[in-house]
Amino acid sequence: MSEAAPARGQDLVRLRAASLNYRDLLMVTGLYNPKQPLPLVPCSDGCGEVLAVGPGVEHVKAGDRVITAFAQGWVAGELTREKAKTTLGGPLDGTLQERMLLSADGVVRAPSHLTDAEAATLTCAGLTAWTALTSGRVGPGDTVLTQGTGGVSIFALQLARLMGARVIVTSSSDEKLERARALGAWETINYKTTPKWAARARELTGGAGVDHVIEVGGADTLAQSIAATRPGAQLSMIGILTGVSTSLSLTSVLMQGLRIQGILVGHREGLEALARATSVHQLRPVIDRVFHWTEASAALEHLRSGAHVGKVCLELGERTA
Amino acid sequence: MSEAAPARGQDLVRLRAASLNYRDLLMVTGLYNPKQPLPLVPCSDGCGEVLAVGPGVEHVKAGDRVITAFAQGWVAGELTREKAKTTLGGPLDGTLQERMLLSADGVVRAPSHLTDAEAATLTCAGLTAWTALTSGRVGPGDTVLTQGTGGVSIFALQLARLMGARVIVTSSSDEKLERARALGAWETINYKTTPKWAARARELTGGAGVDHVIEVGGADTLAQSIAATRPGAQLSMIGILTGVSTSLSLTSVLMQGLRIQGILVGHREGLEALARATSVHQLRPVIDRVFHWTEASAALEHLRSGAHVGKVCLELGERTA
Amino acid sequence: MSEAAPARGQDLVRLRAASLNYRDLLMVTGLYNPKQPLPLVPCSDGCGEVLAVGPGVEHVKAGDRVITAFAQGWVAGELTREKAKTTLGGPLDGTLQERMLLSADGVVRAPSHLTDAEAATLTCAGLTAWTALTSGRVGPGDTVLTQGTGGVSIFALQLARLMGARVIVTSSSDEKLERARALGAWETINYKTTPKWAARARELTGGAGVDHVIEVGGADTLAQSIAATRPGAQLSMIGILTGVSTSLSLTSVLMQGLRIQGILVGHREGLEALARATSVHQLRPVIDRVFHWTEASAALEHLRSGAHVGKVCLELGERTA
Amino acid sequence: MSEAAPARGQDLVRLRAASLNYRDLLMVTGLYNPKQPLPLVPCSDGCGEVLAVGPGVEHVKAGDRVITAFAQGWVAGELTREKAKTTLGGPLDGTLQERMLLSADGVVRAPSHLTDAEAATLTCAGLTAWTALTSGRVGPGDTVLTQGTGGVSIFALQLARLMGARVIVTSSSDEKLERARALGAWETINYKTTPKWAARARELTGGAGVDHVIEVGGADTLAQSIAATRPGAQLSMIGILTGVSTSLSLTSVLMQGLRIQGILVGHREGLEALARATSVHQLRPVIDRVFHWTEASAALEHLRSGAHVGKVCLELGERTA
Repeated sequence: MSEAAPARGQDLVRLRAASLNYRDLLMVTGLYNPKQPLPLVPCSDGCGEVLAVGPGVEHVKAGDRVITAFAQGWVAGELTREKAKTTLGGPLDGTLQERMLLSADGVVRAPSHLTDAEAATLTCAGLTAWTALTSGRVGPGDTVLTQGTGGVSIFALQLARLMGARVIVTSSSDEKLERARALGAWETINYKTTPKWAARARELTGGAGVDHVIEVGGADTLAQSIAATRPGAQLSMIGILTGVSTSLSLTSVLMQGLRIQGILVGHREGLEALARATSVHQLRPVIDRVFHWTEASAALEHLRSGAHVGKVCLELGERTA
Repeated sequence: MSEAAPARGQDLVRLRAASLNYRDLLMVTGLYNPKQPLPLVPCSDGCGEVLAVGPGVEHVKAGDRVITAFAQGWVAGELTREKAKTTLGGPLDGTLQERMLLSADGVVRAPSHLTDAEAATLTCAGLTAWTALTSGRVGPGDTVLTQGTGGVSIFALQLARLMGARVIVTSSSDEKLERARALGAWETINYKTTPKWAARARELTGGAGVDHVIEVGGADTLAQSIAATRPGAQLSMIGILTGVSTSLSLTSVLMQGLRIQGILVGHREGLEALARATSVHQLRPVIDRVFHWTEASAALEHLRSGAHVGKVCLELGERTA
Repeated sequence: MSEAAPARGQDLVRLRAASLNYRDLLMVTGLYNPKQPLPLVPCSDGCGEVLAVGPGVEHVKAGDRVITAFAQGWVAGELTREKAKTTLGGPLDGTLQERMLLSADGVVRAPSHLTDAEAATLTCAGLTAWTALTSGRVGPGDTVLTQGTGGVSIFALQLARLMGARVIVTSSSDEKLERARALGAWETINYKTTPKWAARARELTGGAGVDHVIEVGGADTLAQSIAATRPGAQLSMIGILTGVSTSLSLTSVLMQGLRIQGILVGHREGLEALARATSVHQLRPVIDRVFHWTEASAALEHLRSGAHVGKVCLELGERTA
Repeated sequence: MSEAAPARGQDLVRLRAASLNYRDLLMVTGLYNPKQPLPLVPCSDGCGEVLAVGPGVEHVKAGDRVITAFAQGWVAGELTREKAKTTLGGPLDGTLQERMLLSADGVVRAPSHLTDAEAATLTCAGLTAWTALTSGRVGPGDTVLTQGTGGVSIFALQLARLMGARVIVTSSSDEKLERARALGAWETINYKTTPKWAARARELTGGAGVDHVIEVGGADTLAQSIAATRPGAQLSMIGILTGVSTSLSLTSVLMQGLRIQGILVGHREGLEALARATSVHQLRPVIDRVFHWTEASAALEHLRSGAHVGKVCLELGERTA
């Protein structure tokens, strides 16, 4: 549908960069949703230029540089089944294309200090971290635990620091932990050399336990994540890297009054707030590597390898470098 | 310590009724906390008369009829490890005694329209239901699903209705479901004859899913509870009747943005709010049966049998009937 | 623009009923906003039938009976300057017309048990009361004070009762207070015969003070409203019947930790929640009188007179009775 | 009562520093509460050493350095009339004494990196700013406006920055504004040379308006504070420097959905959270000047003069310098 003129409430965007999420990997391999009809244009994150707007569109205009909102129909408020059906990169066609008709409600002005690739990473990884931390009311003096150095975890590290929290990062690689420290991590734990990382995390907080966990591991990490927390803590369930179901200790959840909060990215007003915070603080998302779109398979393979720190991006259109 | 004069900030209470909770059953059989030193006076719920107050106590006075707060040191705010150590019936001695020194902060005026046994049931079962429903912001038009006819579930039914919600009750007994309907249940599901009760619950809400689940079953029910809910719903984890750990579908929690909230009874200010609401609405807790304290074993056995609807209570002191 | 075919994201609605708000009175007399360009089609509340929908509209279809959302562009989330510019009846043309193109996001399915006139009253008066009470987290056992018997106050009375609160109603007319009692008011105060109504309200709550005030009077009532409340209470500022500015006792606000919350109707998702609650409880809005649209001036005059209890409505189209 | 042994739940504290608040000035001149019985030991803020603890006190012990909680009986939860009666420096005797019996619930461990005088300032000014900003959910990218350079305003500047907000400071003195910039203010406005400071504040936010106002001026500033804000903003009412009542534009509050939130310092758990954040960030409160207690009148006079930036403190006990 890419060449049609924008209808009322739409805008036509020339995309210049996309960024990959683990969801894209699951989607193209059919693991995310077996019922998803194919073919499908993948990717949810995008940054580009508005070429034209349809009638009734006022808050963006031709020439604006924008980023895509993950769920085109989720402006604000709570997630609903209807809103969940409007996500780019499945079920709707995604951003791995040059021109795209989007809902005018489904784009947000890109922070001007960011490259296209950097800006594109706000859509999913950035907003997921933002939604988790704000829903958990993270604030000054809190301790947040993040797992690994993938896109969401690195954003969570950066954003939690903006909120005044100190951040403990876990990884199996000392090299990656070094990067995390350079990005402002308060403490790091190598879970290979310290398999009982939950005990170490609690020790670091003087026995109190951490206030918030960005849970991206899933099956293999949940039990220790619960053990690492204080009573009343929030565990934001974000990823399922190590499995889609796990054993849950109901006693711990109950006895400690824990809150396990599933995070499905977030809404457009959250994305606007994140973009504003990014601008105010001149925050730069961490880009691991930018591939040209013709190398998309290699980019996905790189993401799958887990070798990255931060985001893996795609340049769309002509190769610039 | 029962005959000592109350010190500063204490009151001496003559207890007249206690009520049993599933926790008491676990506690006396050593399943609740293997590290709990014994002997221990069991029971958390109590109602009685203030005999004397220590210096500095102003909000209650001798002659007042009061109920005990579950966590003597949890006045308000979030649960902490320290507050969790102040619960009656383990680790602290409980209410199965005639005279008891309590913190003045640890009692609440009993609603005057209730019998002693009825009032005692507010402490744990009543407050747990109240904390769950208020933390989930249940309101008019919402649908709440409760499981079975135990103390917490029956309170949740009664309180959710006060908040304007409609309530779906599940049970394996048509007779109990009949009682639930008499108490105001909107719909009922016999999970023996309708094993796919989650699908039925969603159907009853026109496909939308329920807004809140009072999850008391634990291991056997969690998966269906998740399937019964709308995106963004809250599952209040309260009980572990059918097991202490279970398989959790991380994908569902994540994709639907669900919130699993552990509920450890609640704080004294919650108990005061519940007592006020109980008085304003002249609400009567549902008492299944009152045993004399000399029949405590039989009472616990009755609770274990699961034959009850509502609360099993104990009369303390001399037998009145 | 009424005869155009609906564009993408729009629907064409044949309106059958409108309802009047005090805002309409201010608008047509130029008091609401002196900068408002005229002429303007007045009225924000409407109920009618969808005649046709544009491309991309899925949640409503031709034949559905719908009510209008006050702010067409306020789906959910916080109020913004942009959203505030999308309100019907000024600055946008309102519902006092037979056919109207609306945003598909700007209508909500009408509860089927309501007449057109009844359904129309949900848009402003109903939603204002809903937003106020839910923002104040009113719940069972709370005491809410409402002023007079206008549309918002009567809705607040009905909705607060659904939430489990008891309601004190003030008015200068014993006859109106009698109506309020018939609608479920817990207590009533005639402020003519009891000029110190705040003291009486506090007395009714045993000296504690009320938990929530629906403040529609404005200048003449605010000081007493503050005096009637408990510490930490919410005063929802809704109306300005008696003046647009007043003297505010900063000391009281400060010393009692009060919250004065301005309420500008609410968003569409709130309207949907209200419509759902209305259906679940088969709630019937209180209609004072329905005028034919050809008698709009008389209807406005009736509203201005203050003689009404509940809502003043207009029948659109052919006269049916 | 200073030499008595601590009873159950009490501790005896040797105070070493106090800090002054505007409230103390009003109290000693009888303006704060004409009904306050005199004599009264003034001052609410204090820091000292625990000399002994009574039975049942576990979370502090002899030798601990602690700060006083403003309201000795407000541990957490909402303000009540009873809690409001437990504030130090009126109605209860305050901290301008060498030894003092306090409730064990009424002290908090002092951050170890602070001097006694610095630590004492957390009690009122620090906690007031903390309560205001957290109740308003201030976060990264928000703009906060603070007025002047008194204790609360300077704390609000420091704490809002920890939360990721940018801060606009107003003052009549360029010298003080220079200090504010050195402390991290984003922008400053001299309201003498820019009397329409609200317009300037809005301009600085690109026309959007600020998200939060720390309102300490009262009568003279409220109207402009309202004009400076975005829709949905919070104005935290803290001070009444320029008068105890003012004209309030009801229309603005209503039309913009503003929230005016009275802030009465805060509770002990808030103070603990503030102390933790202060430690984590090694934040240093801004001390304008420390007087010896024998110069208390001069200290009060200095506070009254308005010449200060940050807090005016008192050294208790022997003069150390």
